[in-house]
Amino acid sequence: MEPVNIIGAGMTPFGILNDSLVQLAEIASFKAMSDSQTLDLKFDHLVVGSQNPDEFVNKGHLSTLLADSLGIVPAGATRVETGPSSGSSAFETAFTMIASGYSDLVLVIGVEKMSEVDRGTASKILAKMMSYENETRYGATPTALAAMVARRYMHDYGLKRDELSLLPVKAHRNGAKNPLAHFQKEVTMEQVRNARVIADPLTLFDCCPTSDGAAALALASDRIVRDLGVSDQSVRVLGVGHGTDYHAIQHRLSLTSFGATIAAADGAFSMAKIDPTDIDVCELHDAFSILELVNMEDVGLANRGQAIEMVKDGATNVDGQIPVNTTGGLKARGHPTGGTGVAQIHDIYCQLLQKAPKALQVSSPTIGLTQNIGGFGNNMVVGIFSAP
Amino acid sequence: MEPVNIIGAGMTPFGILNDSLVQLAEIASFKAMSDSQTLDLKFDHLVVGSQNPDEFVNKGHLSTLLADSLGIVPAGATRVETGPSSGSSAFETAFTMIASGYSDLVLVIGVEKMSEVDRGTASKILAKMMSYENETRYGATPTALAAMVARRYMHDYGLKRDELSLLPVKAHRNGAKNPLAHFQKEVTMEQVRNARVIADPLTLFDCCPTSDGAAALALASDRIVRDLGVSDQSVRVLGVGHGTDYHAIQHRLSLTSFGATIAAADGAFSMAKIDPTDIDVCELHDAFSILELVNMEDVGLANRGQAIEMVKDGATNVDGQIPVNTTGGLKARGHPTGGTGVAQIHDIYCQLLQKAPKALQVSSPTIGLTQNIGGFGNNMVVGIFSAP
Repeated sequence: MEPVNIIGAGMTPFGILNDSLVQLAEIASFKAMSDSQTLDLKFDHLVVGSQNPDEFVNKGHLSTLLADSLGIVPAGATRVETGPSSGSSAFETAFTMIASGYSDLVLVIGVEKMSEVDRGTASKILAKMMSYENETRYGATPTALAAMVARRYMHDYGLKRDELSLLPVKAHRNGAKNPLAHFQKEVTMEQVRNARVIADPLTLFDCCPTSDGAAALALASDRIVRDLGVSDQSVRVLGVGHGTDYHAIQHRLSLTSFGATIAAADGAFSMAKIDPTDIDVCELHDAFSILELVNMEDVGLANRGQAIEMVKDGATNVDGQIPVNTTGGLKARGHPTGGTGVAQIHDIYCQLLQKAPKALQVSSPTIGLTQNIGGFGNNMVVGIFSAP
Repeated sequence: MEPVNIIGAGMTPFGILNDSLVQLAEIASFKAMSDSQTLDLKFDHLVVGSQNPDEFVNKGHLSTLLADSLGIVPAGATRVETGPSSGSSAFETAFTMIASGYSDLVLVIGVEKMSEVDRGTASKILAKMMSYENETRYGATPTALAAMVARRYMHDYGLKRDELSLLPVKAHRNGAKNPLAHFQKEVTMEQVRNARVIADPLTLFDCCPTSDGAAALALASDRIVRDLGVSDQSVRVLGVGHGTDYHAIQHRLSLTSFGATIAAADGAFSMAKIDPTDIDVCELHDAFSILELVNMEDVGLANRGQAIEMVKDGATNVDGQIPVNTTGGLKARGHPTGGTGVAQIHDIYCQLLQKAPKALQVSSPTIGLTQNIGGFGNNMVVGIFSAP
């Protein structure tokens, strides 16, 4: 397997934005190209992760559209879709293109523009990631399923509502220092506790927003890294894993653990030949606060039911032992679905190269991890990355 | 680069079918698994190519849905979309997964279910592959663009309307002998000439239908081939290439040649280290009759303006020197958009293993080629394959 390097990254602010889908992808892409000194190089391939541009913005054939607008024709161009993990799956495809020797330089884009449709339409589009036969037709929503996960987790492990509130408080504390975050203001325990209930026990602050935004990466072979002389400014991809689980949550073995994450993490750690104790910083898919705990445990950063102790101890803070979601996570950085996975990798890339916003920079991390959820807990991609 | 093998293939009939999208994918997949003796093996990954299941059948998150219904959870599962070349792009992604050593066994599915919406809606969905700003908003359709290509080709090379008719006649002659084809009856020169005009000079018989259907492949590493002892029943992937061109046809250098095909063919032939004279049988994307000529020339099987001479000489017939679209092509086999690219590879696999329908079997071919178009002529994938 040929080594794969991230030689540049860029992202737009996340939020409710005026820019179009294509403009967002362009802004992030040109930042990544500029960051990697590849503006005048020949890209072999473009892989774009986007959940549903056809229905969110009525745009089809996004891969060619972007290859053209970015000026990288005749690069092969592919769109990848796995629901909200589309960005990470695009990264995975690009990774195998370089790891196989098929390509030397690949542009990865994750993008979604969710605010052009009204909230009801957005909910209907997003609900398609769930099982119609087993979930949606009975009125279940992603938030309702997350509430079931939270209730069961509370029952099994004694988690308290006020403990859960520590997660959005941390997310917003980090987001407040991230100039690209959707929400850049802190929230208090009081605010989380008193916010309106969305699906009991989850309140408004337990749920990520829908956002517009894009992120991009330039992935390169060792040959390109040598040619550009950027080995000391490149992040190495150590491991990638991808796993699925039964589509409907009722068919799964557990409500409080996602088999797809376990499979994806197994794959990524095996390839990287390291274990979870080696991780210095990570980005986990906290679309709902409870998921940050579940994900920490499934990835192997905490024992079952124990993740909350690490949160309470401050171990997952920016200055803690294993900082989680330093840039605000989905909760505060925002969640343009197809964009999230690439943004997670962008943020880990910045951490490993000491380019994160100063107040969010972890002290000399050498290994970072990303975990991105597709569907409701059934299509996961995990990536592991190392500093130069 | 690790060698990549096709160890099994399957497809449904193409046509207007009662089966659902998921049923079609299941039928093709279980045929491919059965053909490859992998029903009880662990698939590392599933890659499904489908243009627009969200709008054609209101189904989202197809990758997980199929991983679950096929019983291959926790395999990583990804959907790939590049318009009507989605199936070939899914194959390309699966190819790099094995070529990199990331995966040993990958299931590739190409599927589309187009007949659940009415014809007007289908046209609107398909029109999204074109440039809205430059084409669709002025009323252009894929057929209208193909008609422009035909007119220009006639002007530049002196092609006659009756010469063009030889292509649908050949397509239907082959389709009539293919039990899986959408159209299994022959048409005469008279019928083509007198059919209603769709976009002058193209008549009804110059245009492929919209179809339902699925095809699937089992791709495997040499390790799996050895373990199963199937090296004499496997087709080797010799080359893959992918290219794009400017989204709107007005921005391209030529109307009668597609740069994206040239780029894709260059990539595939370089990897395969052979040239077009080595091809024994091929499947080209004849969504419109004129495209078969353009594609033959872009792939390098004929000189500019000369492809029609080969057709007239019978060189592209099943018993000719370089048989093209032996199973009926898109015109007669049918065109369920995301399904087509995988069906093309399925048919070349059958030819190379001497498993084609008897009347369509080419005499001992050793090298086959597929060419699949995404968008209107702007996102092409070419594959080259060899007999055991």
